[in-house]
Amino acid sequence: MADRKRVVILGGGFGGLYAAKALKHAPVDVTVIDRRNYHLFQPLLYQVATGSLSPGEIAAPIRSVLNKQKNTNVLLGEVIDIDPAAKSVKLKDGAVIPYDWLIVATGSQGTYFGHDEWHTWAPGLKSVEDATMIRHKILLAFEAAERTTDPDERCAWLTFVIVGAGATGVELAGALGEIANHTLKNDFRSIQPKDARILVVDGGNRVLSTYPEDLSRRAEHALIKLGARVRLGAVVTAVDENGVTLNTSTGTTHIPSHTVIWAAGVAVTDFGRLLAKRTGAETDKAGHIKVTSDLTIPNYPEIFVVGDLATCIDRNGKPLPGVAQVAMQGGAHAAKVITRRARGDSRPLAPFHYFNKGDLAVIGRARAVANIFGVHLSGLIAWFVWLFVHLLYIVEFQSRLLVAIEWGFLYFTFNRGARLITGKAANKPVGKPEPLEDLGD
Amino acid sequence: MADRKRVVILGGGFGGLYAAKALKHAPVDVTVIDRRNYHLFQPLLYQVATGSLSPGEIAAPIRSVLNKQKNTNVLLGEVIDIDPAAKSVKLKDGAVIPYDWLIVATGSQGTYFGHDEWHTWAPGLKSVEDATMIRHKILLAFEAAERTTDPDERCAWLTFVIVGAGATGVELAGALGEIANHTLKNDFRSIQPKDARILVVDGGNRVLSTYPEDLSRRAEHALIKLGARVRLGAVVTAVDENGVTLNTSTGTTHIPSHTVIWAAGVAVTDFGRLLAKRTGAETDKAGHIKVTSDLTIPNYPEIFVVGDLATCIDRNGKPLPGVAQVAMQGGAHAAKVITRRARGDSRPLAPFHYFNKGDLAVIGRARAVANIFGVHLSGLIAWFVWLFVHLLYIVEFQSRLLVAIEWGFLYFTFNRGARLITGKAANKPVGKPEPLEDLGD
Repeated sequence: MADRKRVVILGGGFGGLYAAKALKHAPVDVTVIDRRNYHLFQPLLYQVATGSLSPGEIAAPIRSVLNKQKNTNVLLGEVIDIDPAAKSVKLKDGAVIPYDWLIVATGSQGTYFGHDEWHTWAPGLKSVEDATMIRHKILLAFEAAERTTDPDERCAWLTFVIVGAGATGVELAGALGEIANHTLKNDFRSIQPKDARILVVDGGNRVLSTYPEDLSRRAEHALIKLGARVRLGAVVTAVDENGVTLNTSTGTTHIPSHTVIWAAGVAVTDFGRLLAKRTGAETDKAGHIKVTSDLTIPNYPEIFVVGDLATCIDRNGKPLPGVAQVAMQGGAHAAKVITRRARGDSRPLAPFHYFNKGDLAVIGRARAVANIFGVHLSGLIAWFVWLFVHLLYIVEFQSRLLVAIEWGFLYFTFNRGARLITGKAANKPVGKPEPLEDLGD
Repeated sequence: MADRKRVVILGGGFGGLYAAKALKHAPVDVTVIDRRNYHLFQPLLYQVATGSLSPGEIAAPIRSVLNKQKNTNVLLGEVIDIDPAAKSVKLKDGAVIPYDWLIVATGSQGTYFGHDEWHTWAPGLKSVEDATMIRHKILLAFEAAERTTDPDERCAWLTFVIVGAGATGVELAGALGEIANHTLKNDFRSIQPKDARILVVDGGNRVLSTYPEDLSRRAEHALIKLGARVRLGAVVTAVDENGVTLNTSTGTTHIPSHTVIWAAGVAVTDFGRLLAKRTGAETDKAGHIKVTSDLTIPNYPEIFVVGDLATCIDRNGKPLPGVAQVAMQGGAHAAKVITRRARGDSRPLAPFHYFNKGDLAVIGRARAVANIFGVHLSGLIAWFVWLFVHLLYIVEFQSRLLVAIEWGFLYFTFNRGARLITGKAANKPVGKPEPLEDLGD
């Protein structure tokens, strides 16, 4: 078997993992490289940030997901360079890994549109570390509000600003509304958690702008019912320890808040930029690599780019969104092309076509909006659809029903089990806004 | 109600929380102060360290445990000083909290018997941060063993040394044995996780030295069956990045290992020492405060010390062990004394008497040793007793059966859900021993 071709997959997210799984029976040796030892179910990260779930409940070790695949090897390491001429990638520890086919699925990271300094006061939500950090920030804000006697300070501690009204922003706001109205209801003596002000800010003209318009409207209604406020057409021009400054059509406003969460803007990873440079690949403004219809880089038929890093024009001429479904289908497509070529079949495969099964966003405890195969749903029924879809996925990866049971339980009790403040945050005095420690790097 | 007496409780562990709960109907205002926002079920911390449970599953927010108690207030803060004459404690943020009665339940912390530098290479297991750090160390050791091609290095990575054969050490070794033999079985390609050497080292002459002798023997047998080795009469004389040095009756041995875990030795907290100094209280060698039979400090009838910080001589003349049961019963006793005095009843209460319900230690997946009301059990039956006892407790505090369900599931699948490497550890190159970052302070 020494002459088997080598497939290297960079990234164990949705794209990379689906590619690896689809290569299970292909006559190739597969190596999955990730700097994390786990696959993260990112769409539920906001539940970790708001204390409903523990990180372990939305993550699965990549090794255990793939441990039955005899042709697949998992490598914990960070890729820092690629040599497309020599067909090899280089790891941070110096190791050089050669490939015959490469699938790049390194995903995206947050961006502050040139204002990286805002990160300190407005963390984004991309990793487990981000999520636990935001959880600390939220819980400590209520603690600080309880402690302070200054009414203005109390108001600033009880004001939560979420920048970005996409799925992450809307779901975060909904979960925060539940926390304020139900979870913490009896926990404090000087404050009423339901007095918290939750503000969702976006530069666009509606929430969930990629969804059909009627669902945007319904989502906004659901947020308002939970006590959140939505401010559209508002552009953030400054963020610091005392709050955010917004530019709207009616002028400039400053909103005093010690808890700002950034749910706007994604950019490609540093490795993505490097890949574009090394291969001379064309990118769009945000750095996404323009791929051919079989998801390879022009002139490099052995380098596939799938998921958030790629920009792919669908049949209707629009670029595909950066969602899990696109990454999963892209990974599977790349695997199919590779399998065919590895078997010596040179016939070209039909171009990649994304099949959109629908969009789903949850708002609060048991309310959602959904667009399933073109059918628009909202309220409890949409939430059940959402639950079902996500459970199918989680069961596949984690082989356990735990998350379902936990949610069922949360649903009935309003209790949130994972309300821990750990790490450095736990050792700081309450009542002073704190800049973020960079837990990642 | 302005003239109600104030009870201040320092620490939300077993002692502090049981005291607070027992004061529910007392005519006093209670303030519980802890620097953590959660109560931790410490006896299960080793399950977090070995990836079976997430931190959120063995912790409950102190506020939510006490939120139905209208006379009780929870304060997130670190106590740094006490003025016994003025009857007040001082927090790190400068706040001064007056008390009429004070219950000190600040517990214990790890100690390296004068070799604090060993901490870097042999972390202890007292906090959630410790537990996740140890989890990272264990998982990364297997990753490094998979990567290295040097057989000596591989052996050092696959050698796990646990210092201390008390309950924590034995339970950790058992869980590690399960991981090596079952959980990771198919996860690697270059190594066989079952080749891991697990070594439990202790200076005494048997494991679980506070248990009856026959149970010590049975526990040792169970460990050996799981592939762990026990080395008794061995004193650690050095720990560094390359392993531990042991002094035994037959001479000195060096054991190459990159994963040493410290499960020996506890000392009182810094605040405990300060309290002794400020009150002139007598302490034993390890710093435990000698209390009267009603658990107060001599000459300070308003200051109670409960749990690990106190040393209390039982009827039979032996000091009580530093276990959860003693702390819980001590906290409840202090509350009873306070309730009686607050009601103006000056009759003295019967002296504190510890009622030992039994001892329990789990070894591996479904094996335990138990001494319940003097009946010695081992094997699966002891494990069921253990499960039952712990579930009762957890249900009381967390109002959820989740942990039970999770364990049931683990029992059938050998799967461990919480095998995540997060934080700074996730961004370091694999294959180099790394000193520990201090996540606490």
